[in-house]
Amino acid sequence: MSREFSFTLHKTDGQARRGTVHTAHGDIRTPAFMPVGTVGTVKGLYMEQVKAAGADIILGNTYHLMLRPGAEEVAALGGLHQFTGWKGPILTDSGGFQIMSLSKIRKINEAGATFQSHIDGRKYELSPERAMEIQRLLGSDIQMQLDQCIQFPHTEKEAEDAMQLSLRWAERSRSAFQSVSQPGHGNFGIVQGGTNEKRRLVSSAGLQNIGFEGYAIGGLAVGEGQKLMLSTLDFTTPNLPHDRPRYLMGVGTPEDILESVARGVDMFDCVMPTRSGRHGQAFTRFGRINLRNARHAADSRPLDGEHPCPALSHYSRAYLHHLIRAGELLGMMLLSWANIAYYQTLMQGIREAIELGTFEDFRAATHEQWQRGDGLRPI
Amino acid sequence: MSREFSFTLHKTDGQARRGTVHTAHGDIRTPAFMPVGTVGTVKGLYMEQVKAAGADIILGNTYHLMLRPGAEEVAALGGLHQFTGWKGPILTDSGGFQIMSLSKIRKINEAGATFQSHIDGRKYELSPERAMEIQRLLGSDIQMQLDQCIQFPHTEKEAEDAMQLSLRWAERSRSAFQSVSQPGHGNFGIVQGGTNEKRRLVSSAGLQNIGFEGYAIGGLAVGEGQKLMLSTLDFTTPNLPHDRPRYLMGVGTPEDILESVARGVDMFDCVMPTRSGRHGQAFTRFGRINLRNARHAADSRPLDGEHPCPALSHYSRAYLHHLIRAGELLGMMLLSWANIAYYQTLMQGIREAIELGTFEDFRAATHEQWQRGDGLRPI
Repeated sequence: MSREFSFTLHKTDGQARRGTVHTAHGDIRTPAFMPVGTVGTVKGLYMEQVKAAGADIILGNTYHLMLRPGAEEVAALGGLHQFTGWKGPILTDSGGFQIMSLSKIRKINEAGATFQSHIDGRKYELSPERAMEIQRLLGSDIQMQLDQCIQFPHTEKEAEDAMQLSLRWAERSRSAFQSVSQPGHGNFGIVQGGTNEKRRLVSSAGLQNIGFEGYAIGGLAVGEGQKLMLSTLDFTTPNLPHDRPRYLMGVGTPEDILESVARGVDMFDCVMPTRSGRHGQAFTRFGRINLRNARHAADSRPLDGEHPCPALSHYSRAYLHHLIRAGELLGMMLLSWANIAYYQTLMQGIREAIELGTFEDFRAATHEQWQRGDGLRPI
Repeated sequence: MSREFSFTLHKTDGQARRGTVHTAHGDIRTPAFMPVGTVGTVKGLYMEQVKAAGADIILGNTYHLMLRPGAEEVAALGGLHQFTGWKGPILTDSGGFQIMSLSKIRKINEAGATFQSHIDGRKYELSPERAMEIQRLLGSDIQMQLDQCIQFPHTEKEAEDAMQLSLRWAERSRSAFQSVSQPGHGNFGIVQGGTNEKRRLVSSAGLQNIGFEGYAIGGLAVGEGQKLMLSTLDFTTPNLPHDRPRYLMGVGTPEDILESVARGVDMFDCVMPTRSGRHGQAFTRFGRINLRNARHAADSRPLDGEHPCPALSHYSRAYLHHLIRAGELLGMMLLSWANIAYYQTLMQGIREAIELGTFEDFRAATHEQWQRGDGLRPI
């Protein structure tokens, strides 16, 4: 637990970057996709499956964990690693996003956020200092500053106020993080500012002035659409320091990830592979396959016979179709597993292509394969 | 697939019996507990987990599978073994019980049953001949006769009529089974007659007159209570042939199973381990543990640190409590797995005790351990 938190940039290929984040609980190969373990479980998967799929790091949600089972409760049980059985690095968000998206009634002022639990209506307060304390109690390897997230669409004034408040909270979060020695643990600032270039610049300059181990890009993937998200990245990532990891929060589809890597992003998280899996959608190298569709009822082919993950190669589409239609747990388990495995295969392909200097070819070939499907019939 | 279906009785200890059923897909060590895979999946478990837990055989439900995906559809996909990935023996019931307990509207006459699907209201017919055809299409190793199940309580006339009709259906089921060569596959008759001794005797004599590879005891565990169930076994099993396996349908709790083995039963099936697991209840050698209970919130002990199944030994009660409270899939997965594993451990203990001639000691010690709990504090 005493190794230093650091980032090594091994290679660039265009804007795409191949690196390693070193943490107290091990290394993270970037570009990295972090499966989301909201309340201490990547939904429907055993941690052994998450690891075997190739994930180096998972994400936990401060908002959810502070409500249930509670930060002090997890700490008393040995921290989030011990509690969940995940031995690798863990990143926790700060709760800002869920306070906006989930909590029933919320009030934001200079001090922090006051909100009601979406579970039982109980009232909670979350300041930048408490957000950092919770993440320290959880024992997370990468701890995010508290920020104010706003809905999309929003007014210019809302975006400006939230960005400025997030900057002031960044400073307080940083002080709180530094007030306790945590060797091997890092603290990321979050660039806000919506889709406005000048505002993103002010935010990123302000954060770099404070100084963090890494920089996240927040406030995207909230309904603005892929085009606006990518154009925002186009003017945001060039202004982030080269020697620190860059994390695009809450993104996204395989397409979003591939295009964001092309714009210099190193880390991603999203509930999409598990959430879509529970609803019957598979992400594969042949594109998306909706297993609910009746056309799969008699299809004895697996999703991808050449993939090392059993969920992709050992079960027929007909069986998956049947399980999903019947609402069976195993259907949700298998498709969540398949999707996490495919996402990790995609990241591995991206990393290898950057190392070889062939990222542009990989990007084009991957898009082409998604379009073409499995070449046998429409899926 | 050409080996003969047979039963070897190795040892008896009091009424308890240690045997082996030989089938086309392998041997079944008895006394055996068969996990229920209603629609082609043991809910919440991978088949590898079911096998590793020690199960030799699983059960599939003709009623559910004929509605979805359909018998001909499963056959076209290579049969139930190929469809589900379970390589060992499979027993299928005949649908009689679910027509009584699940279907919306049903009509029973001499020819068979007409009923509406509980899924979409579609109308189906099930005759003894069709029940056997469905089970042959599924490829099941042990195929049950169609019987008429009745609710408890019932009138004497209802019980008599249902028993007599079931006997006539037994004869037609047997003819249908024998009309096609299925080496290594067996066909069981079902003793009916409620809790009435004379009626059970008539039923069992009638079935033996027809002649089956095994004999099931139906119409129990339908609300009559454990005492009446066991007293019914007391006068039913002595009248079944010694050289054929005896299967008590739909039973039960670990206590029910232990007491029924003591009365000469060889095979069991029940949804209890998986259904209770999904609802937060664990069956362990320390008795039942309700993980929803707040007393487990800070308990870092596993359910049973000495058990080889990871679900019992690698996860803290606090984590299981948290997962069940949060409604997480992993909580249902782990407790279903733990329960299937404990049931199989119980059966293994029973089998070893009979071999050693110490079944009575085992029975007493097991009851005593269930009562005592884990000796640390109330669970």
